[in-house]
Amino acid sequence: MIRLTYRIETPGSVEAMAKKIASDQSTGTFVALPGETEELKARVAARVAAIRPLPPGSHASFPDEAGGATRFNRADVDIDFPMDAVGTDLSALMTIAIGGVFSIKGLTGIRIVDMKLPQEFSAAHPGPQFGVAGSFALTGVKGRPIIGSIVKPALGLRPHETAEMVGELIEAGVDFIKDDEKLMSPAYSPLKDRVAAIMPKIRDREQKTGKKVMYAFGISHADPDEMMRNHDTVLEAGGNCAVVNIASVGFGGLAFLRKRSGLVLHAHRNGWDLLTRHAGLGFEFSVWQQFWRLLGVDQFQINGIRVKYWEPDESFVRSYKAVTTPLFSGGDVALPVVCSGQWGGQAPDTIAATGGSMDLLYLCGGGIVSHPGGPGAGVKAVRQAWEAASAGVPLGTYAKDHPELAQSLAKFADGKGA
Amino acid sequence: MIRLTYRIETPGSVEAMAKKIASDQSTGTFVALPGETEELKARVAARVAAIRPLPPGSHASFPDEAGGATRFNRADVDIDFPMDAVGTDLSALMTIAIGGVFSIKGLTGIRIVDMKLPQEFSAAHPGPQFGVAGSFALTGVKGRPIIGSIVKPALGLRPHETAEMVGELIEAGVDFIKDDEKLMSPAYSPLKDRVAAIMPKIRDREQKTGKKVMYAFGISHADPDEMMRNHDTVLEAGGNCAVVNIASVGFGGLAFLRKRSGLVLHAHRNGWDLLTRHAGLGFEFSVWQQFWRLLGVDQFQINGIRVKYWEPDESFVRSYKAVTTPLFSGGDVALPVVCSGQWGGQAPDTIAATGGSMDLLYLCGGGIVSHPGGPGAGVKAVRQAWEAASAGVPLGTYAKDHPELAQSLAKFADGKGA
Repeated sequence: MIRLTYRIETPGSVEAMAKKIASDQSTGTFVALPGETEELKARVAARVAAIRPLPPGSHASFPDEAGGATRFNRADVDIDFPMDAVGTDLSALMTIAIGGVFSIKGLTGIRIVDMKLPQEFSAAHPGPQFGVAGSFALTGVKGRPIIGSIVKPALGLRPHETAEMVGELIEAGVDFIKDDEKLMSPAYSPLKDRVAAIMPKIRDREQKTGKKVMYAFGISHADPDEMMRNHDTVLEAGGNCAVVNIASVGFGGLAFLRKRSGLVLHAHRNGWDLLTRHAGLGFEFSVWQQFWRLLGVDQFQINGIRVKYWEPDESFVRSYKAVTTPLFSGGDVALPVVCSGQWGGQAPDTIAATGGSMDLLYLCGGGIVSHPGGPGAGVKAVRQAWEAASAGVPLGTYAKDHPELAQSLAKFADGKGA
Repeated sequence: MIRLTYRIETPGSVEAMAKKIASDQSTGTFVALPGETEELKARVAARVAAIRPLPPGSHASFPDEAGGATRFNRADVDIDFPMDAVGTDLSALMTIAIGGVFSIKGLTGIRIVDMKLPQEFSAAHPGPQFGVAGSFALTGVKGRPIIGSIVKPALGLRPHETAEMVGELIEAGVDFIKDDEKLMSPAYSPLKDRVAAIMPKIRDREQKTGKKVMYAFGISHADPDEMMRNHDTVLEAGGNCAVVNIASVGFGGLAFLRKRSGLVLHAHRNGWDLLTRHAGLGFEFSVWQQFWRLLGVDQFQINGIRVKYWEPDESFVRSYKAVTTPLFSGGDVALPVVCSGQWGGQAPDTIAATGGSMDLLYLCGGGIVSHPGGPGAGVKAVRQAWEAASAGVPLGTYAKDHPELAQSLAKFADGKGA
């Protein structure tokens, strides 16, 4: 049995709407039909398991459908779907239990706030191939977050220009580098040329120091065959990671890739905000991320504390909790990628909000590259911030004998941000 | 050059927000970087081409971000992206020009209202394999809409039960039958068993009468390999059409399928409503459908007049215009599938609203199956309604010597619906 929890909003009866969802999404049709027997209904019908009323609202989440009403009844509704009606295919799950509910007349708002999947889904899907343990093993990092950076500007650098910046970041001592999610294989920087320019620097560094920087190349493509060719280009050059724009390639793209992948899959959720930013509509991330983790994401970008985007800190904290909570076992957890406007100064609040695990990838763009002492000092400052925060030492105190952190504090603290 | 038009809403300056979108989605980063030269910016930067102010709103489309403001400035903003920065890959287009904009802080609403793609996209994508002409050729219909029906209830019938209903619909003289979009391959009705039960009836009818009913089997699966196996099962049994839940399988699923497909691809847009139902957020269908048509959809479900869902008639009319307007040539048009609560009575208003083309698939569930005289009379009634409407004769007049239509009018007219 699959349980979905819908937060529904209607000027009418929440009970009637709950029943309508259960009916529409399973056996329901709009007129009584001769062959529709009780027996077949019982086999596949979804059932309303619980209705938990919420305080009513005064505005319609879909404003054009308020119809003059000024009070909108709200409730969290649990609906159970028999496995027989859905099965373990994720496109069936999305279509049957979720997709259709947004079209129902009479609802002025609906948000999917929880989804509990039975054990059958565990065996039916690959989940992450590398996950948290693999990400740490491949980067050789222990006892602290993996420190990553992003090549900026997002677009416009030719492969040799990108490789120069990558060279600086490697020298600076980062563990991880990624293409901006908007960089895939444009005319000015075809992926194969970018791989050819960057990978020698990573291999050289590995030979000299034994440390292999994980580089996530943007391999996304709407055509899974093309995406696989991109994957192979990276793998054959010795690369070990890829940025995948999961919402843009879709379930089909990720499922195809994961079955054949030799790379760590770093998920960027570009486009996701549309599905969650209105609190009365769409999805909680805790629901949406389950699909992608089952399909096989290893690392999941989830923003962080005090980001440059709209997302409030408490939403990040919920996302962090979601990706680090096992669906069925510890091995299906994705590595949280904490990012956006990060420079190390958010380390104490990140620890306070998440419980203090060091199992994360901490991604800084400008926070490393724009450090007054250069990227090398930027990496040191970020490490120092995490050392201080994990020891419970205030950053200002730690900065007294850690000049790189002191410079970061001077440049980025007090709301100036990275 | 690719042109996107964003309808933006902000308590601040629309000009500043327009520039921010252009910057964030191309070269933009959050701090000045040493290597960021004017030359590289010029090569790939997006540019604000026009700002057309709209009357301000009094509510924030993302209500939690109103921040105490009571006036929200609005404008339609054209932004041009160089082809060099994006290329023709649709996942790149979605990621670069669309995905990121929903995350921008300071916007209280944003909707993608138009997208104009250059000729390069035509050659780069397959488009429909069968389209309008192929759908009519395969069904043998001429001079009137293709009349289709849906097997109901949505879920719960075993293959032999489905086949019985299909047999009735075939006898009734429908041109097209489809699985409900929520029916794929559940335990009680595996696709292969359903195909095995249904296709003999279609082949028998074809042998006896020369008329082959087009049956759209639900082949969607998150895994493209599985979806292809489903496709092959249908094709090998002599089937010629498939329902694809495009939003659930994603770009990757559809792209993979289309390259290998021998079936007419009937797109169901389950889940789409979330992306369009709030008028201040998301996408216009005219934008979203371009992606799927380029990827290769042949038939596109777009609701109809007086549907059972939330969608108002004027939204359907815009969708109809969108799918029937060539992107680059007449061959890339998708067949509009007019559906939901249809029984024939909407034919006059459909003709009035769409210009009167007969190039459509008119899909009736209960409108045919629940006809008082049985499905055969239901099909006749629907054909009669279209005959009357296309001749400009009022349905009530035509019904005087067309008893099946008279029965439909008695049962479904006057707001009772199908």
